[in-house]
Amino acid sequence: MTSDIQRIGVTRRWSDAVLHGNTAHFVEVADDPTQPIRGQVTQLLDQIDSRLRLIGSDRTRLLMVQIFLTDLNNGSVLNELWDAWIPEGHAPARACVQTGLAPGYLIEMVITAALLPTT
Amino acid sequence: MTSDIQRIGVTRRWSDAVLHGNTAHFVEVADDPTQPIRGQVTQLLDQIDSRLRLIGSDRTRLLMVQIFLTDLNNGSVLNELWDAWIPEGHAPARACVQTGLAPGYLIEMVITAALLPTT
Amino acid sequence: MTSDIQRIGVTRRWSDAVLHGNTAHFVEVADDPTQPIRGQVTQLLDQIDSRLRLIGSDRTRLLMVQIFLTDLNNGSVLNELWDAWIPEGHAPARACVQTGLAPGYLIEMVITAALLPTT
Repeated sequence: MTSDIQRIGVTRRWSDAVLHGNTAHFVEVADDPTQPIRGQVTQLLDQIDSRLRLIGSDRTRLLMVQIFLTDLNNGSVLNELWDAWIPEGHAPARACVQTGLAPGYLIEMVITAALLPTT
Repeated sequence: MTSDIQRIGVTRRWSDAVLHGNTAHFVEVADDPTQPIRGQVTQLLDQIDSRLRLIGSDRTRLLMVQIFLTDLNNGSVLNELWDAWIPEGHAPARACVQTGLAPGYLIEMVITAALLPTT
Repeated sequence: MTSDIQRIGVTRRWSDAVLHGNTAHFVEVADDPTQPIRGQVTQLLDQIDSRLRLIGSDRTRLLMVQIFLTDLNNGSVLNELWDAWIPEGHAPARACVQTGLAPGYLIEMVITAALLPTT
């Protein structure tokens, strides 16, 4: 019935990723929020790689990333790690704003990525 | 000309829902913002049901929901009602952050949902 | 290989627009953030027009716009200019919340737009 939608890592509250048509939707926060910003961004980018691998995509196929930071002063660390991580020529559209997040979390990313085209 | 895009509840400023391809985009705030958080979340989830019904979809077909709360302390009430509302096995990707909202409003949701596949 | 994704204005950090399937994703802030809110909104709406023209779309084909304002009191100026800019009958779904933004910036928009259907 709903086989046109594929959900990965489904809990009562959210799914780790939702695939529909040619697109995947997912949200990431650092698995370990006790770390400072550098550790959280590093974890988060690793988690995105894992998630993308799991759905047969990769970091060259990000379409849009919305970044929520609890402190825009952490943007320089974010950008340093982000710039090194994004494959040249494949940067997504990106928004970055400051909001509150659940205790401990310093950064959250909302991601839209392209699945591999079915041939 | 633009018949590939269907707009529902169009005003000068926004549409209640916009349908394109296999996907619907809509934003919800409680119709009555004088209510406390429990009343606003209850309304909002009801409104999502109505909106989804109107476009021939339902709550098993949510892809991504971004939640903006004016106070993350309202997250426990949100989660209690949300967890009971989401059909098991069909949770969307979900982000939840704290932002300011227009006076009275305690919660706003940005929703991407799948339309029924055309057969 | 990734010719199903088209990126425009690619930098190390982001792309000005990313096209995939029937949809475009982009984020806009005013090119000149020294201006007050009226100038920033005016610039931003002009920039959206330019971006849409570049990808063969136009302002009748906006699907979803998420607006981040640093001060919701600037909403009245935003709405005045927005209402005059949106072609009647073609308003997108729209969210508007208050967040922090990088120094000087008063408004940021996250945009999902429909490309012209391929015939």
